[in-house]
Amino acid sequence: MNTLELTGNTDTICAISTPLGRGGIAVIRISGPQALAIVQQRWQGKPLADMTTHTVHLGQLTDTAGEVLDQAVLTVYRAPNSFTGEDVVELACHGSTWIQQQVIQTLIDAGCRHATAGEFTRRAFSNGRMDLSQAEAVADVIEAQSRSAHHVAMNQMRGRYSDELKSLRDKLLHFTALIELELDFSEEDVTFADRSEVTALARDIHALISRLADSYRDGNAIRNGLPVAIVGQTNAGKSTLLNALLHDDRALVSNIHGTTRDTIEDTVMIGGTLFRFIDTAGIRQSSDAVERMGIERTWQAIDKANVVLWIVDVTSADTSMAHDILDRCKGKALIAVLNKTDLDDDFAARSELNDLLPEGTPVVAISAKCDADVEALRDLIVETASLPDVASDAVIVSNARHYQALTRARDAIARAIDGLNSGLSGDLLGQDIRECLHWLGEITGEITTDAILAEIFSHFCVGK
Amino acid sequence: MNTLELTGNTDTICAISTPLGRGGIAVIRISGPQALAIVQQRWQGKPLADMTTHTVHLGQLTDTAGEVLDQAVLTVYRAPNSFTGEDVVELACHGSTWIQQQVIQTLIDAGCRHATAGEFTRRAFSNGRMDLSQAEAVADVIEAQSRSAHHVAMNQMRGRYSDELKSLRDKLLHFTALIELELDFSEEDVTFADRSEVTALARDIHALISRLADSYRDGNAIRNGLPVAIVGQTNAGKSTLLNALLHDDRALVSNIHGTTRDTIEDTVMIGGTLFRFIDTAGIRQSSDAVERMGIERTWQAIDKANVVLWIVDVTSADTSMAHDILDRCKGKALIAVLNKTDLDDDFAARSELNDLLPEGTPVVAISAKCDADVEALRDLIVETASLPDVASDAVIVSNARHYQALTRARDAIARAIDGLNSGLSGDLLGQDIRECLHWLGEITGEITTDAILAEIFSHFCVGK
Repeated sequence: MNTLELTGNTDTICAISTPLGRGGIAVIRISGPQALAIVQQRWQGKPLADMTTHTVHLGQLTDTAGEVLDQAVLTVYRAPNSFTGEDVVELACHGSTWIQQQVIQTLIDAGCRHATAGEFTRRAFSNGRMDLSQAEAVADVIEAQSRSAHHVAMNQMRGRYSDELKSLRDKLLHFTALIELELDFSEEDVTFADRSEVTALARDIHALISRLADSYRDGNAIRNGLPVAIVGQTNAGKSTLLNALLHDDRALVSNIHGTTRDTIEDTVMIGGTLFRFIDTAGIRQSSDAVERMGIERTWQAIDKANVVLWIVDVTSADTSMAHDILDRCKGKALIAVLNKTDLDDDFAARSELNDLLPEGTPVVAISAKCDADVEALRDLIVETASLPDVASDAVIVSNARHYQALTRARDAIARAIDGLNSGLSGDLLGQDIRECLHWLGEITGEITTDAILAEIFSHFCVGK
Repeated sequence: MNTLELTGNTDTICAISTPLGRGGIAVIRISGPQALAIVQQRWQGKPLADMTTHTVHLGQLTDTAGEVLDQAVLTVYRAPNSFTGEDVVELACHGSTWIQQQVIQTLIDAGCRHATAGEFTRRAFSNGRMDLSQAEAVADVIEAQSRSAHHVAMNQMRGRYSDELKSLRDKLLHFTALIELELDFSEEDVTFADRSEVTALARDIHALISRLADSYRDGNAIRNGLPVAIVGQTNAGKSTLLNALLHDDRALVSNIHGTTRDTIEDTVMIGGTLFRFIDTAGIRQSSDAVERMGIERTWQAIDKANVVLWIVDVTSADTSMAHDILDRCKGKALIAVLNKTDLDDDFAARSELNDLLPEGTPVVAISAKCDADVEALRDLIVETASLPDVASDAVIVSNARHYQALTRARDAIARAIDGLNSGLSGDLLGQDIRECLHWLGEITGEITTDAILAEIFSHFCVGK
């Protein structure tokens, strides 16, 4: 089923599948052709050969010297009815770190190899138990920290996304069939009667791919945080505000340093939604080339943001760049933030600001430094943000790799539509369709390389 | 079977049984009369009522609103063939912290109560699945950090200790039977013909209890660390050495502040053995009452220690207290440590010291401050210590509560032996035997109070 068959699936792998550390129980998973035979060497209890698939058995695990290591509960899954599609044994042992290490060691001594990151899921993929997009979703499900991120990952893992891709593939193959029919008659110099049917089909495919590609905006926000740009003139207190927004919350989840030196990003969970705050370079007229590049990035951050926080320093009340900023924010959810109320609670800037701001723009006065009214700002951000409304069964693309492939597939089908309109010959159209199929195949893993697979599974935890 | 039946076993409890955090999978355990019915409310898949005990099933978990939370593997254990003796369901779900929390929440919404620490094991005890000493061993197995600690806990959990206690109980009941036989004939004023048989039996019981009680010295060392006392005159560098011994090793496992202000204890794993280093008050002649009390504690630390490190400051080479210290160390594993070699590498103290030390006492020169040769000292400690030689099937008492009960049981049987020797009447002997039985019953939990149980299980993790 997959163009690339993995090597090394003749060996049997083992790893701790439960979180690291001490607990009531820990689960060690063994998968591969020798799973039952290897565990049998370390098992005192009912012989594994006599166990029916999907049954659990109490017994004792022994170490290499034959001494009892632990009482354990053994579950056997016989190929192909297991997560990996291979024979799988799961051992639930007592959750001391010592026992966990010893069990892994005794299994390795008995012939197992320690699994690499994501190797169980990679085997599930290579054995046709799931396509690549589903395999990737397994990691996303484990990483998901909010309800919507969880929904997106779950739908992908359960194959709804794969189903849409399959239906796209069927349409593309139908398209190819129609084109080939035309080619068969081409010697007789008759253009296929119903090019309009082909065009309608191509437009349908384009619309479907576009819907998926466009969902990435929401999908990315859900997975990586809803982007909130913090903009304003230099020294308005943007970085102080970023810290105040983050420090307030215990749910600080990651520290993403921007790919560019001039933007600092950080994610934080507010009211069940993951937000990604982007601290930007201060905006001012500048003749410095490097600074101008930084400011250009600030404009781009506004474009990508779901919410823009425009920070105004109440002590200087300098609104000279206001028109530029407000122009760029048109159509965005904007919040005006009057900062440094600890230094000047007169808010001289407020009335002047009100004249500038579009009707209905929310304004909040805070002191980022003293952490005053930052909580109110946080509430306002949640209120103002257009939170992605993800139906629990919606198919949303949240993976940058998939988005890239979908964009390329869309380009290819767009070229095919142009070709149809300009009366391009069937064999040239066929080339675009093949390219479109190629990019969709990269998502599901029908077309992929070992390097891509290695990269994908390296982000998994070891026991999965 | 137990004198105290726990209340509240009519409700159904749930908890995460695997270590906290994110991993490939997490296991949530549900136990109680409603376990199957409650999980059924949140389960899409084969009906739980149709599942055979000890089988696993793939299906989907839903939240309170009926939306799919996760794909999960469900294992059903029907009463009484489960860990707790009740109906038990285990759900292996994806190991995201979000899913784990949601699954617990949906189960609570469906009628579960969140389990308290050790409540599953407490139910196993109260339902007669294990006695109290076995239940306590479950926590010890999870805590065990070395092979010997693991062996001790495993043997206790697997019931070898319980078997010895049962055999003791049988002997004591046989003793009672013999005594009562005598009482039956007492009106006829005939002393039971064979008091020698009774005496032999009492001596046998005494020997058995003594063996168990005496094993606590090793058991305590294995569980809490082999005691190593660091002694010497004031300012010899004892505390610096303690820090050097601990900092060297990444395997620092706990920070036990002494119950007395004047001794500081810390445990560290060296070469697979847990050592407990005890830093003591410096020894010198003192007229200060408080200081003399501290020094008295130092002498006691020597008495309890398995190894004594006698620290001598090479720069002062004051050996005025040497005779007192060496006298107290007679019969102990002693290591003479010449400290502060960074200040004086002439070791003037060495020759004087050699005359004082018992033949064959190992001497090592170090600088605790510069961490010079501390590694050699660590090796020497492992070499010198009389490590408990624990056969993998040995029954060793490692629990202070059990030791206390055994000591009292031994006192009672000793009184009975005295009574036999002095011709005490059968009914008075019977009182000692009943007391002996009482203390043994406290270990197995046949005789216990709710307060003792609450204290014991409060040290468990929640999911066990």
